[in-house]
Amino acid sequence: MKFGGTSVATVDRIRNVARHVKREHDAGNQVAVIVSAMAGTTNQLVEWVREANPSFDRREYDAVVASGEQISAGLLALCLQGMGLKARSWQGWQIPIKTSAAHRSARIVDIDGQALRAQMDSGEVAVVTGFQGICPETQRIATLGRGGSDTSAVAIAIAVKADVCDIYTDVDGVYTTDPRLVPKAQRLKKVSFEEMLEMASSGSKVLQTRSVELAMVHDMKTRVLSSFVDPDKMPAVSIDTLEETGTLLCGEDEIVESQVVSGIAFAKDEAKITILGVADKPGVASRIFGPLADASINVDMIVQNVSADGKTTDMTFTVGASELPHTLEVLNAAKADIGEFELLSSDDVAKVSVIGVGMRSHAGVAAQMFKELSDKGINIIAISTSEIKISVLIDTDYAELAVRTLHTAFGLDGD
Amino acid sequence: MKFGGTSVATVDRIRNVARHVKREHDAGNQVAVIVSAMAGTTNQLVEWVREANPSFDRREYDAVVASGEQISAGLLALCLQGMGLKARSWQGWQIPIKTSAAHRSARIVDIDGQALRAQMDSGEVAVVTGFQGICPETQRIATLGRGGSDTSAVAIAIAVKADVCDIYTDVDGVYTTDPRLVPKAQRLKKVSFEEMLEMASSGSKVLQTRSVELAMVHDMKTRVLSSFVDPDKMPAVSIDTLEETGTLLCGEDEIVESQVVSGIAFAKDEAKITILGVADKPGVASRIFGPLADASINVDMIVQNVSADGKTTDMTFTVGASELPHTLEVLNAAKADIGEFELLSSDDVAKVSVIGVGMRSHAGVAAQMFKELSDKGINIIAISTSEIKISVLIDTDYAELAVRTLHTAFGLDGD
Repeated sequence: MKFGGTSVATVDRIRNVARHVKREHDAGNQVAVIVSAMAGTTNQLVEWVREANPSFDRREYDAVVASGEQISAGLLALCLQGMGLKARSWQGWQIPIKTSAAHRSARIVDIDGQALRAQMDSGEVAVVTGFQGICPETQRIATLGRGGSDTSAVAIAIAVKADVCDIYTDVDGVYTTDPRLVPKAQRLKKVSFEEMLEMASSGSKVLQTRSVELAMVHDMKTRVLSSFVDPDKMPAVSIDTLEETGTLLCGEDEIVESQVVSGIAFAKDEAKITILGVADKPGVASRIFGPLADASINVDMIVQNVSADGKTTDMTFTVGASELPHTLEVLNAAKADIGEFELLSSDDVAKVSVIGVGMRSHAGVAAQMFKELSDKGINIIAISTSEIKISVLIDTDYAELAVRTLHTAFGLDGD
Repeated sequence: MKFGGTSVATVDRIRNVARHVKREHDAGNQVAVIVSAMAGTTNQLVEWVREANPSFDRREYDAVVASGEQISAGLLALCLQGMGLKARSWQGWQIPIKTSAAHRSARIVDIDGQALRAQMDSGEVAVVTGFQGICPETQRIATLGRGGSDTSAVAIAIAVKADVCDIYTDVDGVYTTDPRLVPKAQRLKKVSFEEMLEMASSGSKVLQTRSVELAMVHDMKTRVLSSFVDPDKMPAVSIDTLEETGTLLCGEDEIVESQVVSGIAFAKDEAKITILGVADKPGVASRIFGPLADASINVDMIVQNVSADGKTTDMTFTVGASELPHTLEVLNAAKADIGEFELLSSDDVAKVSVIGVGMRSHAGVAAQMFKELSDKGINIIAISTSEIKISVLIDTDYAELAVRTLHTAFGLDGD
């Protein structure tokens, strides 16, 4: 069971989390709980770090920031003990959760699940700090980066050979699209790991991408559930009824009757950059995108037009809106290599994606998508596709109309 | 160098601490810094622990509360790096600082100073979390109890074979008595470990008792200094001029021209308990004080009077004022063993102590003390003595008069 920052924001909420855990324990399930820091704590710690030293040492950043989960894990163990359960907290280095040396965005390399498993077998609840581990070479604490607790949870579930990994959040599952935007959006009972990955990279931020990848590789049944439901009104976990609550992430083969399209994702925080009048010679793309890759800027959609005169070309691509200023800087700095050009940019664009494993065996989804948008007079700026996803870049003003239209067109509307 | 909670209460103050450290580093001194948690942090953490579970597991208490120093140590390392110094933070378990298993009041058992020493030899500053270590058997974090950072500092100083251990506080040294009470009080340039111990147990709370004991046993030169002086206006540490700043704690033999009396200490938080009409039989004292010892109540002064009839006796003793309710409970519960008695209690009493190693070779101090008090009409309720201390219990109303009178009488007044 994993609980995020808003679920453990106060001692009262931590007590509520303890009631969820007690329900499982009382039903005979063995439990390890992974917790994030109390909401707000991590931000305060990061603020102090930046105040102390704006160009901070990532190892010291990790030492400071990792204290957040240490606190929430200890408090949850105390609440569980107060309810008569046996429990103890574990910090990443105590297990140990071994990580790479990339402080602040470390990867989990190995987890020894033996001590946790032994504790669980003896009827105790293991409470584990999310988001952190220890770099074995230096014996220093390393954090996994923001949202890393999801990854910790899946990795611990794999290490203790759990039957299921339940991720408690502030939503009660994965929806066909954002229910705040489309009231007819429906909760998905099941979603494949692949679809979930496409949703995450398309703006639906329920789970950290890396946690879904990890669950997929190890075929770990993972659920998304709400922690804000009354713990006594939820059924205890039973392997036969996993689909009855929340959304179950599982292998594609386990989704028997899949719809062609299972969800519509959208991201408004996109920015569009157009390079006008660049010389149309071999290697121009690599001279443009090479420096961006070196600067760790993630380029998403790319469109290239051949211009009328045959000598120059225009190139349009998207990056995350927050990366726009940095991207412009890098491009201007690379002018000597690229040659003369003119830059246009805008963050008034949105990406809308249609996702579904059914597309693998079903032709015509793209054509239907483009027609629906065209019928509403929505102009498509760029297109990108994968095996199970089609994304289009459109004007932000039309984003909500596009999502609602596609949600209805692909038969996703509920009552 | 050790800095307490008020000295690291904000990032700005931590930066000020870093300037003190930089001064020493720039002067060619090798430095390890021990820090407490930012003032207020520990209280918040303890409050959360109590809210989570009032009868808390001490191991989880330690896991939560130890995070405070983790934060301040990381932030200090970051501030030092920001000033161009090489620095890193160490948590107790990383060194390791091995402790007993008595969580929340653990004792330091052993410190491996090698890694710290190697870091210091290479010109880096080692920043160490005070107040905590690791219990080697369980690999769990243990704290030393409130004020334990002083002890951490002395222990680390011993482990790295330091020349001097500087304890920075919010006062600029040890005084002949409390300067808020007696404006003519003078800062002591030197004070012996033994005198410091008597002062600590007599109400002068500059340093934690255990830290002074440790410094005494290992003959570690220890200074008390103020962290609120401008770091640039303090001289860097030089072994030849240690007496010029703050107060130096050292062996008795190093204090050449000692005064007979070096300080007057007082404690207002005392409570007096009188047991009236208890049967005067052998073993009565052990039946009274046995249960108190079992309940970990520290009894200080004891006076027994034989009563007129020879059959019953009265017994007066003192405990800390905060322990009075618990003491009365324990005594009433022990009535079956002790036999019938009547209880009187009061916390309107104060203990005033005259302290000085010179008393060892100087008779008549007690007599002079009693005469001075008598001349002012101050009644003595109880007396206790050690080789270098005479304490009297008096009515609280007369405490300040008594301190001023004795300060003058024993020649301690400054200008």
